[in-house]
Amino acid sequence: MSAMPAAADPTRPTPALPTPDDVAAALEAVRTRAPLVQCLTNIVVAQWTANTLLALGAAPAVVDNPREAAELASVADGVLVNLGTPYAETVAAMGPAVAAARGAGTPWVLDPVAAGALSWRTDVAQGLLAAGPPAILRGNASEVLALAGGDGGRGVDAVHTPEAAADSARATARRHGTVVAVSGPVDHVVDAARLVRVTNGHPWLTRVTGVGCALGATMAAFAAAVDDPLLAAVAATAVVTVAAESAAARTAGPGSFAVALLDDLAACTPEHLAARVSLA
Amino acid sequence: MSAMPAAADPTRPTPALPTPDDVAAALEAVRTRAPLVQCLTNIVVAQWTANTLLALGAAPAVVDNPREAAELASVADGVLVNLGTPYAETVAAMGPAVAAARGAGTPWVLDPVAAGALSWRTDVAQGLLAAGPPAILRGNASEVLALAGGDGGRGVDAVHTPEAAADSARATARRHGTVVAVSGPVDHVVDAARLVRVTNGHPWLTRVTGVGCALGATMAAFAAAVDDPLLAAVAATAVVTVAAESAAARTAGPGSFAVALLDDLAACTPEHLAARVSLA
Amino acid sequence: MSAMPAAADPTRPTPALPTPDDVAAALEAVRTRAPLVQCLTNIVVAQWTANTLLALGAAPAVVDNPREAAELASVADGVLVNLGTPYAETVAAMGPAVAAARGAGTPWVLDPVAAGALSWRTDVAQGLLAAGPPAILRGNASEVLALAGGDGGRGVDAVHTPEAAADSARATARRHGTVVAVSGPVDHVVDAARLVRVTNGHPWLTRVTGVGCALGATMAAFAAAVDDPLLAAVAATAVVTVAAESAAARTAGPGSFAVALLDDLAACTPEHLAARVSLA
Repeated sequence: MSAMPAAADPTRPTPALPTPDDVAAALEAVRTRAPLVQCLTNIVVAQWTANTLLALGAAPAVVDNPREAAELASVADGVLVNLGTPYAETVAAMGPAVAAARGAGTPWVLDPVAAGALSWRTDVAQGLLAAGPPAILRGNASEVLALAGGDGGRGVDAVHTPEAAADSARATARRHGTVVAVSGPVDHVVDAARLVRVTNGHPWLTRVTGVGCALGATMAAFAAAVDDPLLAAVAATAVVTVAAESAAARTAGPGSFAVALLDDLAACTPEHLAARVSLA
Repeated sequence: MSAMPAAADPTRPTPALPTPDDVAAALEAVRTRAPLVQCLTNIVVAQWTANTLLALGAAPAVVDNPREAAELASVADGVLVNLGTPYAETVAAMGPAVAAARGAGTPWVLDPVAAGALSWRTDVAQGLLAAGPPAILRGNASEVLALAGGDGGRGVDAVHTPEAAADSARATARRHGTVVAVSGPVDHVVDAARLVRVTNGHPWLTRVTGVGCALGATMAAFAAAVDDPLLAAVAATAVVTVAAESAAARTAGPGSFAVALLDDLAACTPEHLAARVSLA
Repeated sequence: MSAMPAAADPTRPTPALPTPDDVAAALEAVRTRAPLVQCLTNIVVAQWTANTLLALGAAPAVVDNPREAAELASVADGVLVNLGTPYAETVAAMGPAVAAARGAGTPWVLDPVAAGALSWRTDVAQGLLAAGPPAILRGNASEVLALAGGDGGRGVDAVHTPEAAADSARATARRHGTVVAVSGPVDHVVDAARLVRVTNGHPWLTRVTGVGCALGATMAAFAAAVDDPLLAAVAATAVVTVAAESAAARTAGPGSFAVALLDDLAACTPEHLAARVSLA
């Protein structure tokens, strides 16, 4: 089945670890393809998410009602499902959207916001994960641990470190045949065989609501543009955190930082990204 | 019936083509009247839309539930119905809001986001259009063609040019007795007898989500302040695109451009608008 | 009952009037405690509200569905219920959230946006108020008068002055045993025995959508950090209006003002606040 991620197929060799040049090429691919990314997402940050995708060169579409979600997912280039603000109607759209994406071989990203802390969305996330793996599962350490069977966090705050979640993330990646990306001061991205740390970033990323949610959408855009979902998760993390560094260097607080972040996402060239990204 | 638009009445002479001075006077009228504009709109960009209206001097109110939509529409000065993010509850509010606006002789604007690309909202848009014409139908070329019977676009992206849609827009304007405004690099505004092109603008308008949606709300504000709906559509387009030119001239990317656009909408004087607007 | 506000207990002495030093200490307490503030709020301005709380040092969580609202309210530090955009599902979440907050002795804030102007939300606000008083009832003069039995405003615009509403606010404060905060050019905050005026602010606060809604969330953050709800309402009003003064002094319009306001909320020190706040 074409929708199965590469890492789940034992007959295929594991791709190499991404290099800065791979990350730069992935950004170039996003700019060239301009993928249509359908977002079923936290409605609080949907505007921010759409503006992030537009700044990068992707094409966002927030279509999250059950009458149309599958219709768009069957033609979109990537799909984000984020559980930040679940409602009866938008949750009813998620399953059909994921099924349509899988049927079309289109990568989708799951962002289980506050999984472990709130029971309904935890069940929804487990159900979506069980029905078929996303290309990328993205969350903070608490959320990833919660879906792996550990205890969850307090609301949307991460109370565990990404390092503590890395082993659990790897187990989840192996069980589901997915890439797991754990956000934090250092971002950890794993699949069944590989671990990449992205050490770029800035503390102000935690003072702007929705940066993590927009990162999930960015991963869907990169997953639509490159074949290796681990590279997609790493490159998406890289471009957001590298842009954050330059944005923070010339602004005075979280308001102006958020504005500059959009500017710097748009201005970030593949060359700049390759020069600045810090992989470990 | 007072709610019938002027263009549908064959006994009334067609108003003259709008001049830059007419456009300036329309902006002055919006500032003086400070119209209450009810928005039933794309919830992703509702904050941006409200801030756009506030910057211009209008008073926004997002009331889009079926228990209250008609109650407000009966006293609002203008009503926007935008199909960007339809849900069962908000769609149920649209018909009653439009009926109340029509009953009160209040102009309303229809923005059929992604009509033609997604089936449910296309049906909803056709139904609203059939129940009684809006003062202004606003969309990109694909959406206008879709409602005229042509094929639609890919999500919210326009895949047809405004020039290609102009003939179709005119036919739609004549059939429904409405003004049709087609967004694009050059904006085309038509009624049964007139065509006005607004050639101002900047490519960054397509890198900020919701500019088109906010333009629909701006048209509702202008339609509340002046009698000629074609002038309202032209003047709304003019103030947004002229402000975009000055905003782009002093900013470095889509984030700071969006912020400057709000500043420049607030700062735009009737004199500045008359001097800069380019009508053809 | 621990959830009863102090002002309703006739055996407890009335706290003293807040001083600038008290206001400064309250800000320090918010920064230290970083309260988790659950927002059931106007979805149009939820992002702005969350960014305001993050800028101040609080932790926002928008959880407004009926399956999870009480679950979070039972562990949150403060809860905001704002009626700006009521829907069937979000209104169904409000009663359980308030009941859980009351059961946990957690302060909650009611912001009855457009009460008096629209009938459904007026009924909802009256019902929430009758079920048990919030720590703080926040609104403009029209909304406060409407809940006191007077007539309401036009949409979300205030058509009465805070001065005219002060007597009514005091009567409401006494009847319900709550603090009532009335926004306007001069903000009036009353409980059964005290009246404090905050005279800081700037007209551009009315040109950015959601500033009042975010102020309600800010009050919930302060109510979570200090014991006296009148001090909480005064300190929240002070920090927003003092930051507005510095933000307006260095910006050119409502777009850049809103960005600077977030920066200045983050940068505002207790010392700066004590030096600039104007209480009367």
